Amino acid sequence: MSLTGKHILSSDQFDRPTLERLFELADLLRPVARGEQVTRVLEGAVMGSLFFEASTRTRLSCDSAFMRLGGSVSHSTGFAITSISKGESLADTSRVVSGYFDIIVMRHPEEQAVYEFAAATNIPVVNGGNGAGEHPTQALLDLYALSREFGRVGRTIDGARVALVGDLKHGRTVHSLVKLLSLYRDLTIVCVSPAELPMPGELLDLAARRGHRVEQTDSPKQGLPGADLVYTTRLQTERFADSVAPYSEEFRVDAALLAEVGGPDTVIMHPLPRDSRPGANDLSTDLNRDPRLAIFRQTDSGIPVRMALFASVMGVEGLIAESLRPATWHRPEYIGPDDAPFYRNHGA
Amino acid sequence: MSLTGKHILSSDQFDRPTLERLFELADLLRPVARGEQVTRVLEGAVMGSLFFEASTRTRLSCDSAFMRLGGSVSHSTGFAITSISKGESLADTSRVVSGYFDIIVMRHPEEQAVYEFAAATNIPVVNGGNGAGEHPTQALLDLYALSREFGRVGRTIDGARVALVGDLKHGRTVHSLVKLLSLYRDLTIVCVSPAELPMPGELLDLAARRGHRVEQTDSPKQGLPGADLVYTTRLQTERFADSVAPYSEEFRVDAALLAEVGGPDTVIMHPLPRDSRPGANDLSTDLNRDPRLAIFRQTDSGIPVRMALFASVMGVEGLIAESLRPATWHRPEYIGPDDAPFYRNHGA
Amino acid sequence: MSLTGKHILSSDQFDRPTLERLFELADLLRPVARGEQVTRVLEGAVMGSLFFEASTRTRLSCDSAFMRLGGSVSHSTGFAITSISKGESLADTSRVVSGYFDIIVMRHPEEQAVYEFAAATNIPVVNGGNGAGEHPTQALLDLYALSREFGRVGRTIDGARVALVGDLKHGRTVHSLVKLLSLYRDLTIVCVSPAELPMPGELLDLAARRGHRVEQTDSPKQGLPGADLVYTTRLQTERFADSVAPYSEEFRVDAALLAEVGGPDTVIMHPLPRDSRPGANDLSTDLNRDPRLAIFRQTDSGIPVRMALFASVMGVEGLIAESLRPATWHRPEYIGPDDAPFYRNHGA
Repeated sequence: MSLTGKHILSSDQFDRPTLERLFELADLLRPVARGEQVTRVLEGAVMGSLFFEASTRTRLSCDSAFMRLGGSVSHSTGFAITSISKGESLADTSRVVSGYFDIIVMRHPEEQAVYEFAAATNIPVVNGGNGAGEHPTQALLDLYALSREFGRVGRTIDGARVALVGDLKHGRTVHSLVKLLSLYRDLTIVCVSPAELPMPGELLDLAARRGHRVEQTDSPKQGLPGADLVYTTRLQTERFADSVAPYSEEFRVDAALLAEVGGPDTVIMHPLPRDSRPGANDLSTDLNRDPRLAIFRQTDSGIPVRMALFASVMGVEGLIAESLRPATWHRPEYIGPDDAPFYRNHGA
Repeated sequence: MSLTGKHILSSDQFDRPTLERLFELADLLRPVARGEQVTRVLEGAVMGSLFFEASTRTRLSCDSAFMRLGGSVSHSTGFAITSISKGESLADTSRVVSGYFDIIVMRHPEEQAVYEFAAATNIPVVNGGNGAGEHPTQALLDLYALSREFGRVGRTIDGARVALVGDLKHGRTVHSLVKLLSLYRDLTIVCVSPAELPMPGELLDLAARRGHRVEQTDSPKQGLPGADLVYTTRLQTERFADSVAPYSEEFRVDAALLAEVGGPDTVIMHPLPRDSRPGANDLSTDLNRDPRLAIFRQTDSGIPVRMALFASVMGVEGLIAESLRPATWHRPEYIGPDDAPFYRNHGA
Repeated sequence: MSLTGKHILSSDQFDRPTLERLFELADLLRPVARGEQVTRVLEGAVMGSLFFEASTRTRLSCDSAFMRLGGSVSHSTGFAITSISKGESLADTSRVVSGYFDIIVMRHPEEQAVYEFAAATNIPVVNGGNGAGEHPTQALLDLYALSREFGRVGRTIDGARVALVGDLKHGRTVHSLVKLLSLYRDLTIVCVSPAELPMPGELLDLAARRGHRVEQTDSPKQGLPGADLVYTTRLQTERFADSVAPYSEEFRVDAALLAEVGGPDTVIMHPLPRDSRPGANDLSTDLNRDPRLAIFRQTDSGIPVRMALFASVMGVEGLIAESLRPATWHRPEYIGPDDAPFYRNHGA
């Protein structure tokens, strides 16, 4: 399935061959993402970055990805206070700004808005998060990061045991991830959440229908042993109005828990941000120098994955390889001071 | 008249040969505006985009135009909350930021501010809207779009019958347009507005003095028949404090009205945004697939016209033709799904 | 001392040979800063501009400097309202965004934040102002501008008599400047401030320890005679809570005062913004056409100095000379209408 000229609105759009082609392209683009190589394949193209709801990291990551392809970015976070308050329909707004840009990334707090917006334009629209709905580029980067982590230790996603931990009811990241994981074969998906915050039934059904084993538990100590991946999430307090007690201490994923239930190659992921305040029962900072903690390699993956996606949607993926040239500026060996223990063992 | 190095503050600055040269350059730049060709003639130049008042579409359109010429854009919407609150004069602010940029686009809610700002710098300043004053780049794009629409059906602006409809008192767009239209010959300008919202007398005088026929009516059904252009506007509720009743239903320009008073080649324009809320008596969405509705071709014209203006002010207009190269990314055939009926008949 | 790959957090980091190398590079980059030449030595690199506190001019100046080196800039002023409110540590934020960018400029209202941020990343972090702390790029541009002003009249910084005037207690600019000036030899530093707003004792000690003469007075008429530099500052009302009466009229530096105490080559500087409201006892606008008023040449210096700093930190300083090409767009002879009297005598 070619992505050229397509809107990217949902993780449902992808099939496995498309994912694999995208990830190969992301591999090719990693040196560009790391500032070691340069490509200018989109020089002259302009992306509109329209955030109807604030999201610093998604916005900055998309900016960087498009700029590293050679393109320029113009962005707005202020639509609400201008045209739309004058009675303009979202369809009109979409058609108007589509005349400015070659591609649009948008985030909107209302789930339907991105579909309405995309229906009014033939310029490709990439969903940067639509309320409680989807965040497909996050799901893609998660899966890409996972495939690379597994690849390093000789595993594949097929056949893996995957533990999803935390607020599985509200976390849209984890919902999109289940959809993408379901495209693979023979997984065991262990849903570990407080009883009040379970994975939605339709996603459990989807996974089961595609032939995966699904298990549910409210106990991390029972769900985590044997997991190849532990994917933890933050309590999405801003996404639901009904007061829910925060996780119990059991949901704190830290060095002590991993010593008990982790294996030598267990991969620890988290969509970030994680709550590092005292008393937060989230992923602990005491794992920061543990090479199994893949969270920063995971977020770093956003750049090559979004580059690959933009290049594919713009139809220039075939021009990348020949366009690469070495960067001439200095780059540090590792991005973060805590990254060294991992890279000493595994290489870049 | 050369525009090189000039401030662009008012529609009054233009004469007809300058407009015609600008529009020829805009024609040359259309494939760049549409993402079909690339030029990098301003590579290395930096535009400052200073919006002391929010205006998403003007800002994004200027961004895109300058970026498509190869330049970079840095923008601010937050001046009010920093230096100026510390007692800095607008003249100092202007002189300081002029040291950063090669050209400045600014919008300011106070009519005099852009003149004060421009007086303190030799770096070209382009007025992106000064309160109730002018919005010259909007006027230029309107006129350019109109000349292209007329050109397609073998008409010229000279000799045309032009109906201006709606709030003619507060609409700065329509004021600037009258000034530019007056540079042409032998027009009939029909001002169609509620009695309380008439075209200002000095503009009627200007048009009459330049030899045009001017008519006034408060009835669309009387004013529109025979018009080559119907230019509708939105009630500028945010520009006046005195409460004015919204337009009556008569001012709703829709398929029914056009069936009664329109001709086969009547061009329908609107500066946008239009009010599409239920009960709004603005330009109706039921015309969206009517090829006579030129509003999106009109807004699309903003990119080539602003490119032509920036290139002229920066003095690089003579370098454009030889600088063009084909873009390598995919572009949709039409920007909007509703654009097809028009382009099937008229071509791009 | 090489700056390649280094964080730039404090004026304390610099020694005199490093300053001199930086200023030579700034001299080489002046034609690029002025839009007369183009370099693309950082084409493909992306800077993150993270302003946790608003600062229009620092942000725009850094944007322009990085863009004029060929790089792209993505910026955010909205961190406070997204990740950090979800409990993310500054260390996590730093590590995450470091995966997007090749260099980061940040401003933060809390003095320690920039150190915390920098400690969590190997990507170079440039301090764009940390609360009441430091603003090293401002100090560098001040010193560079001063060395050029002195150079024009055949003076050196070594041996000069320097009067610092105004609120010397809260002005972080003037604190950083004292640190840098102390790297030179044999200065007389005259601190002229109201008795309640003195230069901090540790800075007076530093200057004395490095062999400079230090004088203190609360009377501009006593402190200014014989000064080679008069560096005036604005009352930093936003930096201190305790109510302090504004300066007395004596602290108004204007044509009358200079006629009494100034010499023919006295250089007048000010970090800007200056308070030009009626009754403000700041640097007066009646000096605007006095060639000794160096404030706009001073602010203009920010572009070449920040370019030189970014190029050095990115390790591309050796590639600049061969990369320069002439710009093809029009530039005004002088940036400001009042600049002519100076440039007629001194050349660009």
